[in-house]
Amino acid sequence: MNHLIVAAHPNPESFNHAILQTAVQALKAKGHEVVVRDLYALQFEPVLTLEDFSALRTGQIPSDIKAEQEYIASADVITFVYPIWWTGLPAILKGYVDRVFAYGFAYAYGKDGTIEKLLPGKKGLFINTHGTPGEIYDSNGMTDALKKTSDVGIFEFCGIEVVDHLLFGAVSQVDDAARKEMLKQVEERVSSLFQV
Amino acid sequence: MNHLIVAAHPNPESFNHAILQTAVQALKAKGHEVVVRDLYALQFEPVLTLEDFSALRTGQIPSDIKAEQEYIASADVITFVYPIWWTGLPAILKGYVDRVFAYGFAYAYGKDGTIEKLLPGKKGLFINTHGTPGEIYDSNGMTDALKKTSDVGIFEFCGIEVVDHLLFGAVSQVDDAARKEMLKQVEERVSSLFQV
Repeated sequence: MNHLIVAAHPNPESFNHAILQTAVQALKAKGHEVVVRDLYALQFEPVLTLEDFSALRTGQIPSDIKAEQEYIASADVITFVYPIWWTGLPAILKGYVDRVFAYGFAYAYGKDGTIEKLLPGKKGLFINTHGTPGEIYDSNGMTDALKKTSDVGIFEFCGIEVVDHLLFGAVSQVDDAARKEMLKQVEERVSSLFQV
Repeated sequence: MNHLIVAAHPNPESFNHAILQTAVQALKAKGHEVVVRDLYALQFEPVLTLEDFSALRTGQIPSDIKAEQEYIASADVITFVYPIWWTGLPAILKGYVDRVFAYGFAYAYGKDGTIEKLLPGKKGLFINTHGTPGEIYDSNGMTDALKKTSDVGIFEFCGIEVVDHLLFGAVSQVDDAARKEMLKQVEERVSSLFQV
């Protein structure tokens, strides 16, 4: 399958980048095609402007948006790898969604006002880290809210089927052995989820 | 009271800007002091970089972050006015939170690993618009998820008491009379919430 992985962490030495590399290697080892878009490395512009709106309305898609849309169009599976910051996406990734998942590309309005999902048939996967221990987020409802505002609010809105959402909590507090265990989970899950 | 209103919509002619102006006028009419930070007009830089992390770690706060922190420090009430995009904050506002609500300013870790909330005594208000009708978001749990990831995930995390969260749905579909009614609700709520 064709995989697109969109990653958003400022530090190339981060645990998020270890997750990214683990996922890429696991997929390639199974024979998948993998394209990585590392938004920090790309210095992706995240602010959706009035000029973007005007351009998109007339079908003049800005070139940086167009390039990312083509990667999405070619992908069977789209994976987002990012740290949860302030119970949301890092701004650079939020802006990728704001700008790239544009009206007419990711969704549209039907004649009766209903939403048309324009990315059906694709699968989606989220892999997140966060500082708060997972037990706390699970028990206070934050895990559900995080999934709702990404699985439902982003991917499913466009018809992308979310096949899993891996959340690794307390990453700033756990030891190396625990992090290695997390990477093993990433490898096993990614290897088993997708058949070539 | 000293009010800080942070706004994030690219179009100065938008309904969000009408909400902003309505809130400012209602507060000033009651004798409040109001500072507006219009992030699009300011061209605020939303990407938290590795350089920011390094600078913040050594107490060298980047000047644009420092300026916004001083507005927050001076405020009794902080209001965020923004459109819900993809069930989250527009990237420019998400990045304002990512960068300005920094470790050591908005929160810190205590010796036992617990979170210290560094902005206690302040009040917070959210005013949002979204395209989906409110009844749909109320019934499918999205309204709760939106509040959880902003009220709890941002303001309360730093000790800011959320006094209300106004959500106006279906704004792209309703007529002018409905929008005027929404602005009236903003005016009434803002006028009654805060005593000078």
